[in-house]
Amino acid sequence: MIKQISFSLNPYSRGFHIITNEVLRNLTNLPEVGILHLFIKHTSAGLTINEAADPDVLRDFETFFNKLAPEHLPGIVHTMEGPDDMPAHIKASLVGTSITIPIEDYKLVLGTWQGIYLCEFRNQGGARKILATIIS
Amino acid sequence: MIKQISFSLNPYSRGFHIITNEVLRNLTNLPEVGILHLFIKHTSAGLTINEAADPDVLRDFETFFNKLAPEHLPGIVHTMEGPDDMPAHIKASLVGTSITIPIEDYKLVLGTWQGIYLCEFRNQGGARKILATIIS
Amino acid sequence: MIKQISFSLNPYSRGFHIITNEVLRNLTNLPEVGILHLFIKHTSAGLTINEAADPDVLRDFETFFNKLAPEHLPGIVHTMEGPDDMPAHIKASLVGTSITIPIEDYKLVLGTWQGIYLCEFRNQGGARKILATIIS
Repeated sequence: MIKQISFSLNPYSRGFHIITNEVLRNLTNLPEVGILHLFIKHTSAGLTINEAADPDVLRDFETFFNKLAPEHLPGIVHTMEGPDDMPAHIKASLVGTSITIPIEDYKLVLGTWQGIYLCEFRNQGGARKILATIIS
Repeated sequence: MIKQISFSLNPYSRGFHIITNEVLRNLTNLPEVGILHLFIKHTSAGLTINEAADPDVLRDFETFFNKLAPEHLPGIVHTMEGPDDMPAHIKASLVGTSITIPIEDYKLVLGTWQGIYLCEFRNQGGARKILATIIS
Repeated sequence: MIKQISFSLNPYSRGFHIITNEVLRNLTNLPEVGILHLFIKHTSAGLTINEAADPDVLRDFETFFNKLAPEHLPGIVHTMEGPDDMPAHIKASLVGTSITIPIEDYKLVLGTWQGIYLCEFRNQGGARKILATIIS
């Protein structure tokens, strides 16, 4: 069985944010067994799974990604939407646009330290649209 | 229900290319609701989803990835297949070998600016083989 | 139909390791047609698909990723779990926490050169837990 749920996340500032609970609030009932596919309908923000315990990790991700794909990089020509735009596209493809998480016993299967991250790469990204697909 | 379709893409030059329509031409009918999984059967090319409006973005991706994983990097030893080969493997794992896109109302669900990219990391990659799996 | 199988990998040293056969040994029967989703329940190791023929490729991956996200990077503050920890989180999100592989004719569909990699980013990662989901 396939079930799809569309929702918008709250708007977040540029950076990495744990959204596990916000996602779960939008999904109501999970099946006993299955998988959850989360797809972000944008090209300058991404989704990933990582450490959800220490907020310093979120900060370090932002620091690292800004060094990896800095603004005003020589040779970059797509700059008309602001210096944060092209780096945002690049970062989005590095982390990816969707994640897939197993569901077991009516719950998401996440390791002890794992949480869902929204990776907001724009300065003003607004409320990002997600399409969740649950296969059971 | 699961349906699989194998096809080869046209050969592309090294760089990032939008292949949304080429993929769709190979899939004939999409189901009302489901997901599409696209898997590239190669280790030196990848698939990602990103901005499909401005060709400069494709060019900037190529510029950035060549800086990120340059040819002739000190310490790299797998060089027998040419200087573009090992960087191609690395880039392929950074963007990934497969993408999963929701299907709704008989259509792929892509955000306004999203398109499917072939990331061709070899100088002469040839016609890349794709296996599409549709779950409905 | 959805089937889930939990297993632990053997412990591996820091680096990239081909685990295709080890994964298959844990899965017993594959269905005639479907997809396999492998999810690693950790935030400092990842899964990817890449070249499984030349061990030099594995070594080059380790060399490259250590340059990309080095230890003792200025500005990084999450250091209490050791200098290899925060780079491990970053690398894990760059390669990703899960992979999805098509199944056809009771076998995984992998290209000629493709194999499944465990990307062990910690010095002492231990036995990593995997949840496999097979959809058929």
